[in-house]
Amino acid sequence: MRVAILGTGLIGSSIGLRLRGDATKGRVEVVGYDRYADVAERAKKVGALDQVMHTPQHAAEGADLIILATPLLAIRKMLEEIAPVVSPQAVITDTGSTKTEVMRWADELLPDHEGFVGGHPMAGKTETGPQAADGKLFDNARWIIVPNTRSSERAINAVLWIAETVGAKSMFMDASEHDAYVAAISHMPMLAATAMFSMERASDAWPELSLLAAGGFRDTTRLAGTDPAMAFDIAVTNREHTIHWLNRYIGALIDLRERVAAPEHEEALFRQIAEASFEYSAFINGKVGREEPTDNAGGVAAFSFQDFLAGGWMKEKLAEVTGGDEASRSAEFERRKRMRREV
Amino acid sequence: MRVAILGTGLIGSSIGLRLRGDATKGRVEVVGYDRYADVAERAKKVGALDQVMHTPQHAAEGADLIILATPLLAIRKMLEEIAPVVSPQAVITDTGSTKTEVMRWADELLPDHEGFVGGHPMAGKTETGPQAADGKLFDNARWIIVPNTRSSERAINAVLWIAETVGAKSMFMDASEHDAYVAAISHMPMLAATAMFSMERASDAWPELSLLAAGGFRDTTRLAGTDPAMAFDIAVTNREHTIHWLNRYIGALIDLRERVAAPEHEEALFRQIAEASFEYSAFINGKVGREEPTDNAGGVAAFSFQDFLAGGWMKEKLAEVTGGDEASRSAEFERRKRMRREV
Repeated sequence: MRVAILGTGLIGSSIGLRLRGDATKGRVEVVGYDRYADVAERAKKVGALDQVMHTPQHAAEGADLIILATPLLAIRKMLEEIAPVVSPQAVITDTGSTKTEVMRWADELLPDHEGFVGGHPMAGKTETGPQAADGKLFDNARWIIVPNTRSSERAINAVLWIAETVGAKSMFMDASEHDAYVAAISHMPMLAATAMFSMERASDAWPELSLLAAGGFRDTTRLAGTDPAMAFDIAVTNREHTIHWLNRYIGALIDLRERVAAPEHEEALFRQIAEASFEYSAFINGKVGREEPTDNAGGVAAFSFQDFLAGGWMKEKLAEVTGGDEASRSAEFERRKRMRREV
Repeated sequence: MRVAILGTGLIGSSIGLRLRGDATKGRVEVVGYDRYADVAERAKKVGALDQVMHTPQHAAEGADLIILATPLLAIRKMLEEIAPVVSPQAVITDTGSTKTEVMRWADELLPDHEGFVGGHPMAGKTETGPQAADGKLFDNARWIIVPNTRSSERAINAVLWIAETVGAKSMFMDASEHDAYVAAISHMPMLAATAMFSMERASDAWPELSLLAAGGFRDTTRLAGTDPAMAFDIAVTNREHTIHWLNRYIGALIDLRERVAAPEHEEALFRQIAEASFEYSAFINGKVGREEPTDNAGGVAAFSFQDFLAGGWMKEKLAEVTGGDEASRSAEFERRKRMRREV
């Protein structure tokens, strides 16, 4: 079987590396094209390709499976270029981070083809290019699969095969559902990181701030380091959803600001902080997806934030915040008075 | 020399562990008190203490150096309790994340003492408690030192000695300067992470979102997992500065949203994304602090974002964004028209 990878950056090369790995040894031939010849040559050098092709057409011709792994806005051009040479039996997929536009381009440029199935492997890292390729990049990552109305079962199975072969877990979605979800969980957070980092970087105090910045700031703003072409393409092909989630986030910040500003909202502030911390730990420890209803016999899901609040020190802290005993109540009163004067 | 650590959680225990390490072997005795007896016992068990004391007074009496490492709002109470027994020669410091309130409490409760010097080691991790103690926690971290007007040189030197002994780099600041800086680089980002995580967690789509969340979202919201008591104490003792930076961040998000919304601002959007990405890389690679002016002979500092823009693919991408060639201009025009209709 011949696989053609168009765009041999981090994602394309990582796919190639794994498809040429032990699991498929001798059964898969991977050819690749990149707009920059040296990038394709480096992809071959790291073991991601059997052969470099010098035009998209040469790569696509005779390929059983075509993977478009270029930057998002370049996918349209790739589809345009390969449309005349793609075999009717070929399966074509992509790895773009937004799907509505990609599906539209496929409808427009391959109007009768039954082999197109959109895809989005949700994995990556800050480094770019074939030199950062990693055959394990997709292990346990989600690979979203977005069929169009014409996609044949054979084409869908071929894309499922790619996802499985590279170690990812596949998940079906339609394009607008996909774009709404990733706007919330990936694109908005990325733009928020850009906004935060730009704002701090532009501050007159940046020389001091940068010295004081510890791991927390570096992590919070890490997505500001995303490859700019990728970040830009994402923003402009998923405008509506990204703006929706930016608005919700701005609203959430305004609400939290109110809670910080007013001493009478201290209890609400503490509850929000404590609940977010509790739920974040649950999330990091694998509490994701839709929970199955459990009985009260002690499943993990049965332990809620309310149970947590009812436990030892958290109860104590809430009592402290809300003035549980006489001494702390009076100290609290003094403090509130002082804070009110200052703010 | 006897060191007393009041509050033997992550920070207190990590200090104790290092102060009892090889570098000071046999010269330092570390005693500790914690409001929870089992926490102090665990601190002793992990090697952070020579001896557990059962009241703050017992710990402070006869100590040459007293380190207050309790939660922030508890520092006031600790100062109140130890004030009657502290020797006039003792040096007292703290590890609280905000300093204005702490310095005020010290003025109020130790009005004539020359031994108080505020401190803030800028290190931490998500895990809490003595079981997470790490003697290397402070290696290369900043340790902010905040003297008050009465602090003796001997007291300041003693706190410098702690910072140096645990491997940190010390830096002098006054309390309000400190609180303004850490609000920008630490407290506001922490609350922003809480706001983002709470908002996403409360969404009806959370079951799907949580499945799609990759490393980017986990990192962006990691500070939502901060110990709630610590996060709350920080917010309420650094209200004014935190609100100032929340406002600036909200403003930055609104600006960025405008750039995302309007196709005519695409060039500005791309420039902001590209500049943030470039500067983030520089920051992560150690470009921090105030730069010394360099000549143009090729120092790292001489390479700016403008130089970067002038280079290869970035120029190409800008041309693409701004419609550099006829074909891409017309495709771009179509796309903009479509996007405008949709937004």
